[in-house]
Amino acid sequence: MAKKLTTREEDYSKWYNEIVQGADLAENSGVKGCMVIKPYGYAIWEKMQAELDRMFKATGHVNAYFPLFIPKSYLSKEADHVKGFAKECAVVTHYRLKNKEDGTGVEVDPAAKLEEELIVRPTSETVIWDTYRKWIQSYRDLPILINQWANVVRWEMRTRLFLRTTEFLWQEGHTAHATKEEAMQETEQMIEVYADFAQRFMAMPVIKGLKSVNERFSGAEETYCIEALMQDGKALQAGTSHFLGQNFAKAFDVKFATKEGKQEYVWASSWGVSTRLMGALIMTHSDDQGLVLPPKLAPFQVVIVPIYQGEEQLVRISEVAKKVKHSLELKGISVKFDNRDTHKPGWKFAEYELKGVPLRLALGARDLENGTIELARRDTLEKQTLSIIDIESTVEALLEKIQDNLYNTANSFIKARTYNADSKDEFKRLVEKGGFVYAHWDGTSETEELIKKETKATIRCIPLDSPIEKGICLFSGDPSTKRVLFAKAY
Amino acid sequence: MAKKLTTREEDYSKWYNEIVQGADLAENSGVKGCMVIKPYGYAIWEKMQAELDRMFKATGHVNAYFPLFIPKSYLSKEADHVKGFAKECAVVTHYRLKNKEDGTGVEVDPAAKLEEELIVRPTSETVIWDTYRKWIQSYRDLPILINQWANVVRWEMRTRLFLRTTEFLWQEGHTAHATKEEAMQETEQMIEVYADFAQRFMAMPVIKGLKSVNERFSGAEETYCIEALMQDGKALQAGTSHFLGQNFAKAFDVKFATKEGKQEYVWASSWGVSTRLMGALIMTHSDDQGLVLPPKLAPFQVVIVPIYQGEEQLVRISEVAKKVKHSLELKGISVKFDNRDTHKPGWKFAEYELKGVPLRLALGARDLENGTIELARRDTLEKQTLSIIDIESTVEALLEKIQDNLYNTANSFIKARTYNADSKDEFKRLVEKGGFVYAHWDGTSETEELIKKETKATIRCIPLDSPIEKGICLFSGDPSTKRVLFAKAY
Repeated sequence: MAKKLTTREEDYSKWYNEIVQGADLAENSGVKGCMVIKPYGYAIWEKMQAELDRMFKATGHVNAYFPLFIPKSYLSKEADHVKGFAKECAVVTHYRLKNKEDGTGVEVDPAAKLEEELIVRPTSETVIWDTYRKWIQSYRDLPILINQWANVVRWEMRTRLFLRTTEFLWQEGHTAHATKEEAMQETEQMIEVYADFAQRFMAMPVIKGLKSVNERFSGAEETYCIEALMQDGKALQAGTSHFLGQNFAKAFDVKFATKEGKQEYVWASSWGVSTRLMGALIMTHSDDQGLVLPPKLAPFQVVIVPIYQGEEQLVRISEVAKKVKHSLELKGISVKFDNRDTHKPGWKFAEYELKGVPLRLALGARDLENGTIELARRDTLEKQTLSIIDIESTVEALLEKIQDNLYNTANSFIKARTYNADSKDEFKRLVEKGGFVYAHWDGTSETEELIKKETKATIRCIPLDSPIEKGICLFSGDPSTKRVLFAKAY
Repeated sequence: MAKKLTTREEDYSKWYNEIVQGADLAENSGVKGCMVIKPYGYAIWEKMQAELDRMFKATGHVNAYFPLFIPKSYLSKEADHVKGFAKECAVVTHYRLKNKEDGTGVEVDPAAKLEEELIVRPTSETVIWDTYRKWIQSYRDLPILINQWANVVRWEMRTRLFLRTTEFLWQEGHTAHATKEEAMQETEQMIEVYADFAQRFMAMPVIKGLKSVNERFSGAEETYCIEALMQDGKALQAGTSHFLGQNFAKAFDVKFATKEGKQEYVWASSWGVSTRLMGALIMTHSDDQGLVLPPKLAPFQVVIVPIYQGEEQLVRISEVAKKVKHSLELKGISVKFDNRDTHKPGWKFAEYELKGVPLRLALGARDLENGTIELARRDTLEKQTLSIIDIESTVEALLEKIQDNLYNTANSFIKARTYNADSKDEFKRLVEKGGFVYAHWDGTSETEELIKKETKATIRCIPLDSPIEKGICLFSGDPSTKRVLFAKAY
């Protein structure tokens, strides 16, 4: 605990890894590319899940569960989809092990080879649309508004905790509709839900937009996304919502009888966010002292640390601390009282700073005499000594203030790091510097690829709220009607 | 909906399948042995999860997440464990597909063969103890009290929805302790938690006991279980809690420094319940009309069906129905108001009966005139017309009554089907008839296997509350000090 973190300035990537490990969020496992999400990290994910689940249900969705395995042939049914997902995936070929003859362990039993290989789901469109075919006959069966919380696997060569792992946790919504308009409305609604969640709970400002053709989900006709900006000036895609048109309905032959009795293909959307959001959360708010958590997602919002010498002082302090804890809990605030005698107060202070607990209360023998308590904010690192009377309302108000402050700080950061580029040189310079760069683009995939090759910047999105503005593509010189958002990205 | 169910008398197994499918709980997927859990079924599982999660947290546990994949070599480290689990499992051998040369789809890329095969977890002791080694150095790091909600895969040849599927959902607790006593206490505590959950929420009486050596978890020194009795007289193991001794600590070299500075191996427990509980719930309470749900686990506890002719009546009835719904919800009761105009009331009645909704309220034009409402109980199928004034307290009281009634009915059933057998012939006759049979046994695996071979009955458990009683083993004639519980089982 005594060891200082690498600073962001020194080595951003090392700083990130040290926070993930130091704050007990996650670690690499013995299985290449797969992480262990530790209890403190998982508790944050559970808070995210609970809020998102509430938002999904409030917009009419229900949860269900579909198989982990996808028969190989399903993947081939949607031509674009297989291109995007068949490449790097975990393939189950056998269903049994047997003892080695030399007694040194177990080996795959060649007699137990599957007739058709199974793919560990990288995403579930195929297995779900194979099921929807059985569920949908008539317009009366529509819409279907289903979400699934699940693990998925995409074989990754270079992995980073939370940001890119072979196995990750996510939710995937899969909806079926009678009309194109309704499916499109659903797609747009869900990107709004994600943006709302990011901003209100994660205190993370995002830009909503459409992906370019190149960056679309494999099998989608349109991909909406939310893009956030990390403190190193790199963008991070934090959630996507896809309008799938009738692609999967056609691939899996899912038709319905309209009110007028005609047979039509069903329209679809899918949308997801994953444990990648943990990476986004960490990189948006944390500082060189460690993790900084928005109060709405903190496993516990307040920690109380007793400062004492001897058992007798601890007893007296504990009595008051427990009262404070109880009265905070009555206000719906989560509190940990850390009365472990195995660690010194200074050690605990550093630990909770590293773990990003929004507010720390410290209570000593002198405080008892004076009727005071010491309060420290994690976001600003400010300390003050307050009267213990009415500490509950102070804490309650401060937690809201911290939530707002984190959002505002992150928002100021984005504003300061958002630029318009009006020449190729300026574009290159700004992309190199890091940040969101708005620039004109001719709308072609060729130019997009050229820009990526020359600058490593990708089109993060075509922002929904970008104004119409006549311009010239910086790279091709062809006309453009709107600036799009470029950045180097995770 | 009009089609009647097969009765339990006619074909118990067919009746079960018809309920699972008819009540929209689950169905087989296109992937052999894997099920799709449909929204209504999943909503019940979510209620189970929420209660269990609350009970785990109240007993000091936290959630975390460990990898889906287990390197083949991990499985071999604990000798008994590999015997039990390596046999039938899904083996990942490759990490990529490629396009077939003839353009007809995709095939496994032989160049992407894994150096070491990965097993899709059948249970997570090995991968978790491999991790605990890194987390545990000293007695200060203990205990570790972790639970994981996850999917697991055990390759099954003959599958049945919820009862035995290749992939299933479950929770698995994995705890690490400094002393044998503490690990044993934890093991016992968790079987009590499971029994409490089964009885208070599922309204399902269970017998707590110890497994015989033969039936123990592979790698455990002692396995506690809860056993329930289904309506066909077969037993169902509903949950297990294992005392693992130091087996996994030794296999994965997990030692800790005691307070006195000595190095010792860590003590362990693991415990789990799965979506199999859904099968137990269905078979404990349902009848020939369909599913019967205990109010504490019903996705909605009350359904209101309007009985109307014409739009004008529907409007007036809806106004009152919505008021009733709202006031029930204020009491924490979950309510669905089914005002669909695509289905007749009779159809809806049959549907909600099949789906096991505990209480149905029906409201017609005449009810509005008379200030009445019709109420039907799912458990007893009784109907009565009541004054609409104060319907909320009636409903509230009835839901509690139904919960109790379901438990009492199930308990009477068990009592009526529990026997003492005092001769071999009587034993065979009673086992054949179906039910719990208490009998003396000499304590040897040989006799246990003989009994299984001759009668298909297994020792469900050595009940914790069986009195000491001198007797003679029915099959070997050797002395016995306690009756154990036999039954044919799922």
